[in-house]
Amino acid sequence: MSKYWSEITKSVEPYVCGEQPKDKKYVKLNTNESPYPPSPKVIEAIKNAADEDLRLYPDPDCDKLRDVISKYYGLNKNQIFIGNGSDEVLAMSFLTFFNKDETIIFPDISYSFYPVYANLYNLNYKLAKLNEDFSIPFKEFLTENGGIVIPNPNAPTGRCLETKKIEEILKYNQNKVVIIDEAYVDFGGNSVVGLIKNYANLLVVQTLSKSRSLAGIRVGFALGQEELINGLNRIKNSFNSYTVDRVSNAAAIAAFEDQDYFEKCVSKVINTRETTVNKLEKMDFNIIPSKSNFIFISHAKYAAKELFIKLREKGVLVRYFNKDRIDNYLRVSIGSDEDMKFFIDKIKEIIDEIERS
Amino acid sequence: MSKYWSEITKSVEPYVCGEQPKDKKYVKLNTNESPYPPSPKVIEAIKNAADEDLRLYPDPDCDKLRDVISKYYGLNKNQIFIGNGSDEVLAMSFLTFFNKDETIIFPDISYSFYPVYANLYNLNYKLAKLNEDFSIPFKEFLTENGGIVIPNPNAPTGRCLETKKIEEILKYNQNKVVIIDEAYVDFGGNSVVGLIKNYANLLVVQTLSKSRSLAGIRVGFALGQEELINGLNRIKNSFNSYTVDRVSNAAAIAAFEDQDYFEKCVSKVINTRETTVNKLEKMDFNIIPSKSNFIFISHAKYAAKELFIKLREKGVLVRYFNKDRIDNYLRVSIGSDEDMKFFIDKIKEIIDEIERS
Repeated sequence: MSKYWSEITKSVEPYVCGEQPKDKKYVKLNTNESPYPPSPKVIEAIKNAADEDLRLYPDPDCDKLRDVISKYYGLNKNQIFIGNGSDEVLAMSFLTFFNKDETIIFPDISYSFYPVYANLYNLNYKLAKLNEDFSIPFKEFLTENGGIVIPNPNAPTGRCLETKKIEEILKYNQNKVVIIDEAYVDFGGNSVVGLIKNYANLLVVQTLSKSRSLAGIRVGFALGQEELINGLNRIKNSFNSYTVDRVSNAAAIAAFEDQDYFEKCVSKVINTRETTVNKLEKMDFNIIPSKSNFIFISHAKYAAKELFIKLREKGVLVRYFNKDRIDNYLRVSIGSDEDMKFFIDKIKEIIDEIERS
Repeated sequence: MSKYWSEITKSVEPYVCGEQPKDKKYVKLNTNESPYPPSPKVIEAIKNAADEDLRLYPDPDCDKLRDVISKYYGLNKNQIFIGNGSDEVLAMSFLTFFNKDETIIFPDISYSFYPVYANLYNLNYKLAKLNEDFSIPFKEFLTENGGIVIPNPNAPTGRCLETKKIEEILKYNQNKVVIIDEAYVDFGGNSVVGLIKNYANLLVVQTLSKSRSLAGIRVGFALGQEELINGLNRIKNSFNSYTVDRVSNAAAIAAFEDQDYFEKCVSKVINTRETTVNKLEKMDFNIIPSKSNFIFISHAKYAAKELFIKLREKGVLVRYFNKDRIDNYLRVSIGSDEDMKFFIDKIKEIIDEIERS
């Protein structure tokens, strides 16, 4: 601790992101990236944006991108907020909607950035304990609170919460903002964007990092009624006017315009997920039903931590959380068919080696 | 005000950035952008970065970019923090180093984002009143405080504070962080990067938006001893792990590697500034001595606001601040020789019109 740090700096517990390896080539199934490159039209758009106008600031309001997204979702342009990745959008949302003297609620097993944001802004929070099957205990959210955050599908479990239950939560909490984090929704989940017109307290957050293969360009967004979006803009414009650069803007627009490519990539990931799940089930793995681009798996006999370490040695990165209740699970991103064959082969090798030793 | 907004959202007073016109073509001298395109090597680097790896997250630590900047400044790599524009770096610095129960100090006429950050984090601040000639009243910073922010050169005045005086401020405030915002330093200012080795409390903030013609890609950085940089990383990693995307990273690296191009652009801007100043002086303008890529000017007879409005009508955007003490000044960014000729011609036309009417 340094004497120069503020009290907040001293008290935060920073998020640790999945390893971005610099040493060697891995089959990288640890940060839920897409195995497929961005649309060729995105690549083209980036090259076209590489021009002399880069000397100028970008459009601080991302007007054209909001146009494209609003048409995609049948919303009004003023119901859209764009940020530098959905992490930034979430960080700003916590500050925009939650107050210190109240207690927000999110699931105990969930995106591990939520408690980090809460600590950053000195917010109280209560963890809603997932049911034994890792489903969301939605009744835990029908209680007095200062705001709610639920990822749907949940991460790292991949499980969905039914729209009907989300609607109950929205109804019960009409005076508090309910954030539904749909980072992974495109892989078969149930989006609640359709509920925005009926619920002024609903904020949906999405990203281009996963289903649109653009983790490298950092664009995320929030959808909600204008009142919520105006709040986000107040905070954003008190922090950084130009959060999304010219190139990312152009890339994001092109990604939303190439719907065919998006659908193809998503359906390939879903197919690969189902094939992988079938294979793992035959190998004595328990797999939480997933509607996302990752699976959360636990072996009947062998410890997740051991599998994690051995996979790494064999060139496969997956994510392991050394945390109560989930410390015997691995979160495995869905790669290409080839990636997953490599992963399954290595898992088989490891199990063979353990059984022979 | 919405019932969904937090107390902070209700209380902030967002920054209003210089107009990014969407309606028609202007000679744009209102946001201190470079009139010159980025280096051809930057354009090339962006095109090369437009590849399938965009599906992957960027390096959260901007390792290679920190390498390049550290060599450029003769610093250690761990003395560098990269962010999404220097606005983000400043926003995070306020949170990292300043505490609520203390009072920070910055000049009264200065970058208008500083009070916005202070309000965002609910920090007390005191304004140090610039001297009559708009020089920084450095003795005002030799007093008990919770931290200091000084732009050098100052914006929107363009005036510099001598290194010796900054050193006095650093010495007096050894237990508090002193942020020197060097956004405009490359246009003839006196950088204090060389003082970092001697002062653990010094944080220097710079940007690629101005002298490196990259306002459109959003990269800024802070330089300071490791203790300060570690604090910034704690806050950043509690907010957004990946603030700088793959393309911006590549562009920034290429920009720092093309030193020749940088020097050429900067010296052209300085030459144009001096020529413009000479012409304006002959037209009865008072011009604050500027070491930046803008000038702050006031006419002996005609009101700045009127000139501002008429310039806009004639296709020239400059910046006007409707604020006590500076409401008779215009901040004019230095464009190309051609831009400035157009600007001077229009000013002449306007003065002629006023005098004839």
